[in-house]
Amino acid sequence: MSGKDLISGNVSYDGGRLTFAGMDVGKIADEYGTPAYLYDENRIVDNCRMYKRAMKESFGEGSLPAYAGKAAAFGYMYKIMSREGMAADLVSIGELYTASAAGFDMKNAYFHGNAKTDEEISEALRLGVGCFVVDNPDELSVLDDMARKRGINQKILLRITPGIDPHTYEAVSTGKVDSKFGVPIATGQAAEFVKSALAAPNLTLIGYHCHVGSLVFDTESSVYTDAARIMLDFSRDMRELVGYAPEYISLGGGYGVRYVNSDPQVDIPKNIERLAEFMKCHSAEIGLPMPKVITEPGRSIVADAGMTVYTVGSVKNVKGYKTYVAVDGGMTDNPRYALYRSSYTVVPAIESDEKMICDVVGKCCESGDIIQPGVSLPASTRRGDRIAVLTTGAYNYSMASNYNRIPRPPVVMIKDGETTLAVRRETPADVAALDLMI
Amino acid sequence: MSGKDLISGNVSYDGGRLTFAGMDVGKIADEYGTPAYLYDENRIVDNCRMYKRAMKESFGEGSLPAYAGKAAAFGYMYKIMSREGMAADLVSIGELYTASAAGFDMKNAYFHGNAKTDEEISEALRLGVGCFVVDNPDELSVLDDMARKRGINQKILLRITPGIDPHTYEAVSTGKVDSKFGVPIATGQAAEFVKSALAAPNLTLIGYHCHVGSLVFDTESSVYTDAARIMLDFSRDMRELVGYAPEYISLGGGYGVRYVNSDPQVDIPKNIERLAEFMKCHSAEIGLPMPKVITEPGRSIVADAGMTVYTVGSVKNVKGYKTYVAVDGGMTDNPRYALYRSSYTVVPAIESDEKMICDVVGKCCESGDIIQPGVSLPASTRRGDRIAVLTTGAYNYSMASNYNRIPRPPVVMIKDGETTLAVRRETPADVAALDLMI
Repeated sequence: MSGKDLISGNVSYDGGRLTFAGMDVGKIADEYGTPAYLYDENRIVDNCRMYKRAMKESFGEGSLPAYAGKAAAFGYMYKIMSREGMAADLVSIGELYTASAAGFDMKNAYFHGNAKTDEEISEALRLGVGCFVVDNPDELSVLDDMARKRGINQKILLRITPGIDPHTYEAVSTGKVDSKFGVPIATGQAAEFVKSALAAPNLTLIGYHCHVGSLVFDTESSVYTDAARIMLDFSRDMRELVGYAPEYISLGGGYGVRYVNSDPQVDIPKNIERLAEFMKCHSAEIGLPMPKVITEPGRSIVADAGMTVYTVGSVKNVKGYKTYVAVDGGMTDNPRYALYRSSYTVVPAIESDEKMICDVVGKCCESGDIIQPGVSLPASTRRGDRIAVLTTGAYNYSMASNYNRIPRPPVVMIKDGETTLAVRRETPADVAALDLMI
Repeated sequence: MSGKDLISGNVSYDGGRLTFAGMDVGKIADEYGTPAYLYDENRIVDNCRMYKRAMKESFGEGSLPAYAGKAAAFGYMYKIMSREGMAADLVSIGELYTASAAGFDMKNAYFHGNAKTDEEISEALRLGVGCFVVDNPDELSVLDDMARKRGINQKILLRITPGIDPHTYEAVSTGKVDSKFGVPIATGQAAEFVKSALAAPNLTLIGYHCHVGSLVFDTESSVYTDAARIMLDFSRDMRELVGYAPEYISLGGGYGVRYVNSDPQVDIPKNIERLAEFMKCHSAEIGLPMPKVITEPGRSIVADAGMTVYTVGSVKNVKGYKTYVAVDGGMTDNPRYALYRSSYTVVPAIESDEKMICDVVGKCCESGDIIQPGVSLPASTRRGDRIAVLTTGAYNYSMASNYNRIPRPPVVMIKDGETTLAVRRETPADVAALDLMI
């Protein structure tokens, strides 16, 4: 598969040489070394603006997208989110630290997590996080107590489990009744959760949150409209039961992106428009004031803004079986094939007409360390050549490890013909920096 | 399942409180915080000595075990390996750095990898690594050239693929004909590889290497005797063909360990003894001088010397479905369930007779972030309680990530009633240390 057939318009060939965001990938690799994560900054900005515009046009003032940083969290990214006026989802003390150190305004942050530690809750309060997304009654109780001790009143959303199965990969499906996240409506436990939240003297309930899963390709948007209907009906029931109506409903994230040509293209503004129409209509039907809506895009903001470039370390044809092309990275910088058998599009830095089919594998000492099987690459591919994996902007840098003590790649931002190092390459000494050599 | 029923003798309850390597786990958690990796240093030492003794008794002088550091590589560990006179397998520039910084004698190191970079090869030569395990012809050519430029002659083993399927999990099965590792015998390519190695002027071939896979529980040892037979027969064929007989054959690693009570207990000295008998007998049969033998234990050196201790963050009973116990770690410090659905034994820090069945899950924003489903824990378990996961000494610390920007746990060594910090806890600032806040 050629980059030209693909995807996102920011990948093409110019005189046979791969370009990304208008720049020659081989030259960037020469300058920064490999493996390296490249990001098209303008694409990130465009994706943010697409979401902001769609949310405002469809839902009106007060509704907003919050960037789900777990897709890719580093200082430079939070600076972009600040400039673009995005809110942000933060999920750990590490994300709190990074966003804060990058100057992100914590009033615009939503603090998530199914098992927030005392330290995390305390730090989020200290930093003045705008809203906690409270996952469970244990957290509700600890948070109320800590807010009291600080003499503050904390805004919260409650994470509710709507009981939706988004028919996606199980590991990333989170909205089913039986989920480690949130409190289910179906069992009556969500109603009790709301009553507890309303009774907590140091907390102000501003609404409900749900998240049905990741990689949702439902182009008719029925997963989200189903979730919205359930959340609105739950809101009506709670208004009848306890007189509380939500100011906000967050519907989480989850739109899929195109990793390969056979993936559908989700028209996100259209989906948001349909969702808004449905919610306005259904709210009117059930007599509920239309809440403001929050969405939490992560993958669809950064995935197609990312590319990983590698250098080939060996080409091995096992006669009668297959050809392996091994690169200088692997499951350490992209664990998604090892975790989920994820599809990716792999392309050469230099185009060629004569092709071979091969498995692109990593350098880790593990057979499961595969970048992508069944890839078409130039038949001439050999040690030293560069290849690129497309659409690696989400869950690659953020899930990277030091397995085999392999240092992690740098993050290079590309904008208007210039490159900027956002995260420097890890060194072997960095990898051992926490070792106490006693 | 109770720790008492278990496994390795270094886990028990004393007055209802969990102990590991003779020390109270709750007290260690109080001192070092959670999550934390604990290691029983004496167990590591015992495992090393068991291997050294078995290799010497069964195979004689010159045969040796090499610790496969990918199971757990940090400075303190290489200091233990130095003291115990173990050789070591290194697989990346990061492992080279760590072992070297810890004072490990590089003459006793074997440098592995299917896609060694120029930088890694150069660094390994500079450090005076005793032996390269050359994976493929591309590497052979680069290594010969770099050795020439340095004016040295480098000892090498060749990685050969024997065509064995060890009937283990596919991702950790590496000895099949169709493998990303090594050069296969079956296709005739290994014979060419040997000829090229013998013709390389700056390299000295000292033998062959193979590795059939991980987690091999074959108590009759037929996987290893099969591999040994194939390697010996190949050696005989090559001696007939080119007059070269190997001084060493490395049979890699792979013995399984008991993660749960239903796992078999492999009697490693017995296996090694049987393997040696077979190899001596078969060598004599085919008229080949018996080579010295290298084994590469990793998991079986460190797995049962490790434990991870967590603090419970929430207990959530989804009525009619199941109970989730969420802890302050997860797939970030133990990705093996997410990667392989690995079994683990989970026990409470405080014993109790009244039990419940629950899924122990992590704190990452991902449904697949499960430590272990179907665990028996005290019915009274609640936020703040400690629980421990046993047999986490291998591939937990080494595969850990910062997904969700979660800092990685410390490594605490326990020896003779004393604790020593081997790797300090990562801080949020450490996680962001490579971010350039431009």
